[in-house]
Amino acid sequence: MTIEKALVVGTGLIGASVALALREKRVAVYLSDIDAHAVWLARERGAGQEWTGEEVDLAVIAVAPHLVGERLAELQKQGVAGAYTDVASVKVGPIADAERLGCDLTSYVPGHPLAGRERSGPLAARADLFSGRPWALCPGPETDAGAVRRVLELVSMCGAKAVTVGAAEHDAAVALVSHAPHVVASAVAASLAGGGDVALGLAGAGLRDVTRIAAGNPVLWRTILAGNALPVAGVLDRIAVDLAAAASALRSGDLEGVTDLLRRGVAGRGRIPGQHGGCAVVAVVLPDGPGELARLFAVAELAEVTVEDVRLERSTDRPAGVAEVSVRPEDAGRLAEALRFHGWHVPAHDADLSVGHGFPAR
Amino acid sequence: MTIEKALVVGTGLIGASVALALREKRVAVYLSDIDAHAVWLARERGAGQEWTGEEVDLAVIAVAPHLVGERLAELQKQGVAGAYTDVASVKVGPIADAERLGCDLTSYVPGHPLAGRERSGPLAARADLFSGRPWALCPGPETDAGAVRRVLELVSMCGAKAVTVGAAEHDAAVALVSHAPHVVASAVAASLAGGGDVALGLAGAGLRDVTRIAAGNPVLWRTILAGNALPVAGVLDRIAVDLAAAASALRSGDLEGVTDLLRRGVAGRGRIPGQHGGCAVVAVVLPDGPGELARLFAVAELAEVTVEDVRLERSTDRPAGVAEVSVRPEDAGRLAEALRFHGWHVPAHDADLSVGHGFPAR
Repeated sequence: MTIEKALVVGTGLIGASVALALREKRVAVYLSDIDAHAVWLARERGAGQEWTGEEVDLAVIAVAPHLVGERLAELQKQGVAGAYTDVASVKVGPIADAERLGCDLTSYVPGHPLAGRERSGPLAARADLFSGRPWALCPGPETDAGAVRRVLELVSMCGAKAVTVGAAEHDAAVALVSHAPHVVASAVAASLAGGGDVALGLAGAGLRDVTRIAAGNPVLWRTILAGNALPVAGVLDRIAVDLAAAASALRSGDLEGVTDLLRRGVAGRGRIPGQHGGCAVVAVVLPDGPGELARLFAVAELAEVTVEDVRLERSTDRPAGVAEVSVRPEDAGRLAEALRFHGWHVPAHDADLSVGHGFPAR
Repeated sequence: MTIEKALVVGTGLIGASVALALREKRVAVYLSDIDAHAVWLARERGAGQEWTGEEVDLAVIAVAPHLVGERLAELQKQGVAGAYTDVASVKVGPIADAERLGCDLTSYVPGHPLAGRERSGPLAARADLFSGRPWALCPGPETDAGAVRRVLELVSMCGAKAVTVGAAEHDAAVALVSHAPHVVASAVAASLAGGGDVALGLAGAGLRDVTRIAAGNPVLWRTILAGNALPVAGVLDRIAVDLAAAASALRSGDLEGVTDLLRRGVAGRGRIPGQHGGCAVVAVVLPDGPGELARLFAVAELAEVTVEDVRLERSTDRPAGVAEVSVRPEDAGRLAEALRFHGWHVPAHDADLSVGHGFPAR
């Protein structure tokens, strides 16, 4: 059996994106939100129609973590759906709430799509938001296999990759790879308050990278961190201890202690998977504006090289810049040759093309 | 008077890049390095000719911070140049060494170009490495005005922007905006050693951004940190205290304490200048490979929109991806319209286009 009718409760960024993805698969999608305007906006985006109590194959609860249990209990009381899931970024709390409220845990498959955007609300929604992203599922021993299959179908329809994981393991994982790094980025950014304009004027791309996520909405993040407080606190404590030890080692001239942390950092960095992980970088001097980039990509196409990422370094007061084009290592030589053949200035480089942005104030 | 002849001592990435930039301005450049192979490579790149004792207008000392004073003393003893500068990433130590070794401080202008690459050595050198970047100069009260003018000319020839700053202020500034953030990124990356493969599989672009610089060479960074130990330790201590307090606040349920750190982070992040700071982002669905990117840039060119940056999100197992194109805020609407006119799928968005990557595991 397949999902023919679905209900999305909460039409923010994630809920509306799920709805859009389901609409593309011709699922009948019903929308519900406490905020009638959010439903209206999602409908305008083509995400579905307003829910008026219809029964569905699957209900997707896309509300804040502390409201998941409550909504689940209400929906199950009405017998709305054959199966239920949620998309909250923490899992232990919502599951405990559901148990406490006497929910039917056989039809509920806790979930968390690992996707997001810098903007929120239904207007930021995209049908492809989950494309290629992991989608954690945390079924318990009591969860019905049919409900799991239905939620797996949802994940597949959204183009995501299902990752089955225990709820506690999930919360510890996102504390490590997302929630704690966010707080650390905030602490680095907060430290800049102590710097003068001259100091900030010396900032480079490295600092921008480290602090990028610190621009996130504090109110949203407060809720996320509150829902995963202990795992996040554990990671933060370990990082704080490492930093205090590094400071102390620097003061006492114990350089081996600091170098050890740097080495562990290189090793940890290497453990992050992702399409850019194994990329080679071809650097090209960009004479001027957008036309040159178009030419560059045209040459890459001719050379049958897939561009995985591009970083532009262009200053405001000079026309020339540099494009660092990430490609598969086996394509780097071919791309460089093709660019040179077409008159581009591609600086020579070491044999070792592996990425590793590691210079001060770059 | 102008720089007609220059000596570059140390032909690594920075020295060879200075040499290449000067060659483009038709300066006669002489190269010297303890490593004869490094000189040979720099010569092959067209960076100049081997130094055989010629007198020059300016000597650029591009060696490790702890060797600057020694080299300066040797060169001044031979009366090689009219003026001297260095490019070390810390300044208090080299200046103290120069004083201790009895160098002539009137002809020495301590300097630090804020530029670097992920790769090192003369083959990674680029004439435009310093283009649009800040270049700190730390003349003392005894420094001769003529020497300062000559070094300002060097900075200008390299296309950089001179920033005059006291040596202690410089070291505190780079501790804040570069050296301490590097150690923090290393600590976050090091914390990943404690995570399982499932946890790492949930990582997103946010974690990659925070830890990117942690891939830097530990041996190089050990030297940099050793040369700026106390200022870096001070910043690390403050960040460690903030993180320990955040952990403690999370454990005790004091969410206001954590939210305050997040808010300070948003404010600090906003203080970083840079061309991408005030950019708007236009997100476009990319149907497939490199040809589509070329089309995208061609449309941007037709619309007379300058692309400041591009971020691609493309998964390995699906053809479609998303390109987030950063442009000047006033250009965002025009670009979106032009793209839609040419058949691109540009998702609708909020009126607020400001950047702020703030979602979990993006």
